[in-house]
Amino acid sequence: MTLTVGVVGGGQLARMMIPAAQALGVELRVLAEGADSSARLGATAIGDYTDLETVRKFAAEIDVLTFDHEHVPTELLASLESEGVVVRPGSEALVYAQDKALMRARLSQTSVPLPAWSVAQSVADVEGFLQASGGEAIAKTPRGGYDGKGVRVIRAASEVSDWLDAGEVLLEERVTFSRELAQLVARRPSGDIRVFPLVETVQQDGVCAEVIAPAPGASGELETQTAEIATTIANELNVTGVLAVELFQVPDGVVVNELAMRPHNSGHVFTEGALTSQFEQHLRAVLDWPLGEVSLVHPWSVMVNLFGDAGNERISAALEFSGRVRPHAYGKEPRPGRKAGHIVVSGDKLDDVVSIARGAARAGERA
Amino acid sequence: MTLTVGVVGGGQLARMMIPAAQALGVELRVLAEGADSSARLGATAIGDYTDLETVRKFAAEIDVLTFDHEHVPTELLASLESEGVVVRPGSEALVYAQDKALMRARLSQTSVPLPAWSVAQSVADVEGFLQASGGEAIAKTPRGGYDGKGVRVIRAASEVSDWLDAGEVLLEERVTFSRELAQLVARRPSGDIRVFPLVETVQQDGVCAEVIAPAPGASGELETQTAEIATTIANELNVTGVLAVELFQVPDGVVVNELAMRPHNSGHVFTEGALTSQFEQHLRAVLDWPLGEVSLVHPWSVMVNLFGDAGNERISAALEFSGRVRPHAYGKEPRPGRKAGHIVVSGDKLDDVVSIARGAARAGERA
Repeated sequence: MTLTVGVVGGGQLARMMIPAAQALGVELRVLAEGADSSARLGATAIGDYTDLETVRKFAAEIDVLTFDHEHVPTELLASLESEGVVVRPGSEALVYAQDKALMRARLSQTSVPLPAWSVAQSVADVEGFLQASGGEAIAKTPRGGYDGKGVRVIRAASEVSDWLDAGEVLLEERVTFSRELAQLVARRPSGDIRVFPLVETVQQDGVCAEVIAPAPGASGELETQTAEIATTIANELNVTGVLAVELFQVPDGVVVNELAMRPHNSGHVFTEGALTSQFEQHLRAVLDWPLGEVSLVHPWSVMVNLFGDAGNERISAALEFSGRVRPHAYGKEPRPGRKAGHIVVSGDKLDDVVSIARGAARAGERA
Repeated sequence: MTLTVGVVGGGQLARMMIPAAQALGVELRVLAEGADSSARLGATAIGDYTDLETVRKFAAEIDVLTFDHEHVPTELLASLESEGVVVRPGSEALVYAQDKALMRARLSQTSVPLPAWSVAQSVADVEGFLQASGGEAIAKTPRGGYDGKGVRVIRAASEVSDWLDAGEVLLEERVTFSRELAQLVARRPSGDIRVFPLVETVQQDGVCAEVIAPAPGASGELETQTAEIATTIANELNVTGVLAVELFQVPDGVVVNELAMRPHNSGHVFTEGALTSQFEQHLRAVLDWPLGEVSLVHPWSVMVNLFGDAGNERISAALEFSGRVRPHAYGKEPRPGRKAGHIVVSGDKLDDVVSIARGAARAGERA
């Protein structure tokens, strides 16, 4: 019998699980949002992932259910689990990637370093936090945000009055960081963990733009700290599959920014940069199969996102720019600012790799 | 507009073009032999590739037609070309991969080193060649052979009387070789060529069993010779796409054994072993897109074929054997001797890489 993994969501993460599943000889089925989803090649169902009956029907004929995104309602997943569906990561873990306020509260029970934070239910709560934080804070909607959406830098409670009307607001200290990092790990249900190399992530307007593997100049001490943080979170929260921990580097180490319990933009670089890609590792982990080695294959690998468009013209222009470019188009209609694809360039010298990757990403960009 | 490549044949070569097409953002459509073909994920049509109307209909809505195998009748392809279908490689090139007697005759007009050969139409022809060749020869059916089928070592004309009844028989000198090599190149219609690193191939019972990249101990002189041979053939025969030249190493260099004008078993090792895989390179070449660099990523990479079965149990056993194993299942029903998948292992020391790859290939083998 061939094992079948079901993926909720037809975005580029599901798309990039398709080659990994094919290589493993596992069947992948995708519950997509529409006929033109990025993962349409693997789509076996189209429907609303917030509808219990739709997801139940999709999950009826698969061995493991996993995710392209974290927007499936927690209660829906808990219902499926109570009916015997194998959901990985499970709803009790996934809720901490779905709800940032719950995540902060849960991680506060661990040794993991966090920024100062609070959950505000009123204008007075926000004003109190701002006063204690030098007049400035990061405000987040606990649920539903991504790529900078649902995040604001605020200096007055009035700036989140709309969010307060709708519910709670997570407030966090505005951390002064030297750079952003991401630590990915993969964990099997049996507890076995593989720690990916630490990477640096470069954000533009709240969206990941570039990733460098390994994180330049990272000390062994820093790498040990980030590996321990991600391992602790994966174990304490009983995560299965890939866990991405986004981190701020601060003078005495790092603090945890966000979590994702799925393959993550910061891990795309490993498809070419490491022995095992995050997509294959995620499938192996949720299947409870042996995990792969993740040591780096090149001294340096750099990923640059292609925004707006990654159609044939842009990809072939990037390939023309350098024979070292590894392309990944997401098969999406062009739209300004949209993550439409990415490229990876690897090599011996970081400066060269960065300049090739940036030049190739600009090549064929629509004016 | 998204470009569409049509592939005739639904075997593992078409299967492994799917991830490459997805990464490039190109649509791949496969004309498969049946619903359970290895490339079923990309299959958009099922039908008989020897039927003109079937292939014509398949080719009507694609930009470029290419191949998983060389068994499509030459005349059928010539008809399509005359109707305006872009066929790559074209029928005038492909015929030399389809017909070994024509290949020998055509290559004899070039500087490429060949074994002694002759086309026999009668018992007398065979006896004459045997007498001139020390009483022994390799006999081949000019068309339709693969993986050792259609090839015999003969010492008497009676051993090929069945073939003579059906038509011509290609006779070749039985070359005393120290080992077998394969030289792959990719060529665009514009003439641009990329030469893959020279690899050693190890055959068992006439079937490729292992491939080592780079070919151990190959001198620069040898590499220059094999690169020149493959480049000469690609240019002289106007090949587009990947060309694989199988070679025998002999005391004063090499002689050409066989040609394939498509991705080839000897090039599977490049998916992990080189910057650009043969599958992506083939698609880039037939689309007349810029070709990728093919320098080796690891000091050593070894591919071992999985015969008989590459189901979930065998693949997970191979992954359990070593975290360095890169799996490729072909999604085929188990059958004794069938090429069901392959694995690649890369690393710094050849002995270690070979022993991991062989051990992993044996792990989970059915008794």
